[in-house]
Amino acid sequence: MTDFPYGSALIVGAGSGISASLARQLSALGVKVGLAARNVEKLQLLIEQTGASAFAADVSQPASVAALFEEAAGALGGPDVVIFNAGARLRGPLAELDPADVEKAIATTAFGGFLVAQQAAQRMIPHGRGAILFTGASASVKGYAQSAPFAMGKFALRGLAQSAARELGPMGIHVAHFVIDGAVRSQMRPDLAEKPDGTLSPEAIAQTYIDVLRQHRSAWSLEVEVRPWTENF
Amino acid sequence: MTDFPYGSALIVGAGSGISASLARQLSALGVKVGLAARNVEKLQLLIEQTGASAFAADVSQPASVAALFEEAAGALGGPDVVIFNAGARLRGPLAELDPADVEKAIATTAFGGFLVAQQAAQRMIPHGRGAILFTGASASVKGYAQSAPFAMGKFALRGLAQSAARELGPMGIHVAHFVIDGAVRSQMRPDLAEKPDGTLSPEAIAQTYIDVLRQHRSAWSLEVEVRPWTENF
Amino acid sequence: MTDFPYGSALIVGAGSGISASLARQLSALGVKVGLAARNVEKLQLLIEQTGASAFAADVSQPASVAALFEEAAGALGGPDVVIFNAGARLRGPLAELDPADVEKAIATTAFGGFLVAQQAAQRMIPHGRGAILFTGASASVKGYAQSAPFAMGKFALRGLAQSAARELGPMGIHVAHFVIDGAVRSQMRPDLAEKPDGTLSPEAIAQTYIDVLRQHRSAWSLEVEVRPWTENF
Amino acid sequence: MTDFPYGSALIVGAGSGISASLARQLSALGVKVGLAARNVEKLQLLIEQTGASAFAADVSQPASVAALFEEAAGALGGPDVVIFNAGARLRGPLAELDPADVEKAIATTAFGGFLVAQQAAQRMIPHGRGAILFTGASASVKGYAQSAPFAMGKFALRGLAQSAARELGPMGIHVAHFVIDGAVRSQMRPDLAEKPDGTLSPEAIAQTYIDVLRQHRSAWSLEVEVRPWTENF
Repeated sequence: MTDFPYGSALIVGAGSGISASLARQLSALGVKVGLAARNVEKLQLLIEQTGASAFAADVSQPASVAALFEEAAGALGGPDVVIFNAGARLRGPLAELDPADVEKAIATTAFGGFLVAQQAAQRMIPHGRGAILFTGASASVKGYAQSAPFAMGKFALRGLAQSAARELGPMGIHVAHFVIDGAVRSQMRPDLAEKPDGTLSPEAIAQTYIDVLRQHRSAWSLEVEVRPWTENF
Repeated sequence: MTDFPYGSALIVGAGSGISASLARQLSALGVKVGLAARNVEKLQLLIEQTGASAFAADVSQPASVAALFEEAAGALGGPDVVIFNAGARLRGPLAELDPADVEKAIATTAFGGFLVAQQAAQRMIPHGRGAILFTGASASVKGYAQSAPFAMGKFALRGLAQSAARELGPMGIHVAHFVIDGAVRSQMRPDLAEKPDGTLSPEAIAQTYIDVLRQHRSAWSLEVEVRPWTENF
Repeated sequence: MTDFPYGSALIVGAGSGISASLARQLSALGVKVGLAARNVEKLQLLIEQTGASAFAADVSQPASVAALFEEAAGALGGPDVVIFNAGARLRGPLAELDPADVEKAIATTAFGGFLVAQQAAQRMIPHGRGAILFTGASASVKGYAQSAPFAMGKFALRGLAQSAARELGPMGIHVAHFVIDGAVRSQMRPDLAEKPDGTLSPEAIAQTYIDVLRQHRSAWSLEVEVRPWTENF
Repeated sequence: MTDFPYGSALIVGAGSGISASLARQLSALGVKVGLAARNVEKLQLLIEQTGASAFAADVSQPASVAALFEEAAGALGGPDVVIFNAGARLRGPLAELDPADVEKAIATTAFGGFLVAQQAAQRMIPHGRGAILFTGASASVKGYAQSAPFAMGKFALRGLAQSAARELGPMGIHVAHFVIDGAVRSQMRPDLAEKPDGTLSPEAIAQTYIDVLRQHRSAWSLEVEVRPWTENF
């Protein structure tokens, strides 16, 4: 399909689940793909499969994120599409969590999202086009017990997505937030492969991201939720 | 594309906007399309363009809806996909509305949605597959002043969609609710053609419905919102 | 307490739970209370306890609701406060429900709410003050499986409350919607008396309604949710 | 009224608006009140009026918050009630904000809320009672353009409140989150005094906080929204 509206995509917080599927599907559409992660070694196989570029970055550090976009622009152009997929799932009783861990989790999930969105906006605004996608979770819309830091980070990311959509939409930049309401299968979660009916296929999720990227600007989605057909929600 | 997962579709509450675009796009995918409206005469041009079948029905009457599905099953098979697109947009001060008009508006927008969903469910459950889509509006999630009956009808339809999704999803039936957050261009609203940036293209909306129909059941969307890029929301 | 801001209250859909507690608490504040129900015989004990007036009415019938307000105005004055507490909790599989029952349930829960709100608005608008309270449920914000008609009715009532608040608030009329998220103890549910920790006390709920009625108009609540401390929500 | 259920209260992020009204109203109920702020000098008048204790603290620093609770416990006992009222309202175009300012804003609004809630939980859990209240804003439920950092902080605080409520509620601790949907009058905003109809009275807001603190645990509110009667929302 030569009609895909974007030529380059940077996936931040790349791992073996949604990001890997996105890298494969975007590459197959002819999009130049960059993958950013703290540890790029784990991305080797994916890079070989897709021809994507890999970048090391710590999303919670402003200088690291700025350098990432500089590098990505050189390697890919753009990027026209930026997908923020990072997040720290810290769990535990509210009274017992280590504040330093909580601070770090919020820095990764929320502040990292801000840094990435800001870099993306700075590069997209002059062109009047682009797309910024955020990956949310059940915890984006419901704060669960024993999971305050994850709820804080994911709620904050949703607030960021709403602000960014209202601010950047009229400049031609499509901002979308996905509520992934369930467990996603991946190489890191081989246990889930045995429960296909109750878990999300990363390929299916990625397909919905691609659909949203293809939307005409007269009918953009800001929020899309996806869950398995058998989910009890 | 021969991989579309459904063979027949019944669009209830068919007019010149979203329904017409859906009829065209589904027909182009090889789907047998039926269009139901109170007044089928206004559908003549669309029927000629798409080869769709037309059925007269009053969605607020149980017997009429039952007869509609009987007829549609004979003409189309299935239907595998049912799209409820009817609704009555009654406005006015709460204190001055005619109760009979309000009752009728709720009957069309909400009770009609129930009758159509029930008929669809009865026919889809034995096959363990199918899709039921509901068209919502800004008023589905926000009750505006001077617009109580429309808010009542659209809120109720959203409640129905949620109940139906939780009940029918695990039976293999995909239920989805679309929040159309803005004015939709159509032949009946030629005034909107001059404001393409602030209004929704029915073709673009229909494309998103089609995308949702194509979703794999491991990552189904229940609710998707769409709005124009310039919308101040 | 002589500072209660209202002198008369009409409670529509009166039974043995929240309504009874409201009748007692409002009477104790010196408010003239009217109770409306389809069957007033069951209210005898409550009337004796509180000195409230009782009115027979079918909330789904425009003429009956108009007559109710006429009668109540004669007996109580006002009413300054109107509380809509009626609702039909119809359950069952979507595919098997009797459409006539569903229509009746929506008529009681939603259309009845409209009729009562309209009568209340007509009488309050000329005075530029008053309060209209709606009793919602968990089903007001979440549509459960096997419970489509209740979700439809309660969602619609919430849409009505939002529209009414936006329209009538600036006229000086306080509209509030309560999400009662759990089972309420009452004489009709003696089984719940044994689970005080997991169920709502109607006296406690009524206290929150009274608190909302006392709110200064510079900080009105539209929506308040209440649930038991042990609720798993 | 000697029946108020709590004996001591710590208000964190104390200023001249809601906090001042809360300090006055709680003191009048016989509650020992502590006020915490980065700069306690501005609290002098309030301390003289109410007899409250003042504590200097930086809510974004774990050690400072721990020291605050240590000090407050010594001076007040408990505290039985903790109210988190701090927040940084940073505005500006997403592309132009200084990342260091954004990080600081999130640290105050969200991470500070976590630190305070954690200290409160640690002290309340052994007693099986207490109340933790969070002050939210319109930005808690809607992310506005040009206001991403405030939306991020307030969304995160709401996620925290939900998690804390689900986790601590069954332990006897009442967690509540208030959505203050409009501008609050205060000594720091003398301009608002001229628009009493469109702004919130801090005394009225404080009254609703007190009402929620008085709620019986069989019908606790988690979220309460308040706005002026003329608000266009």
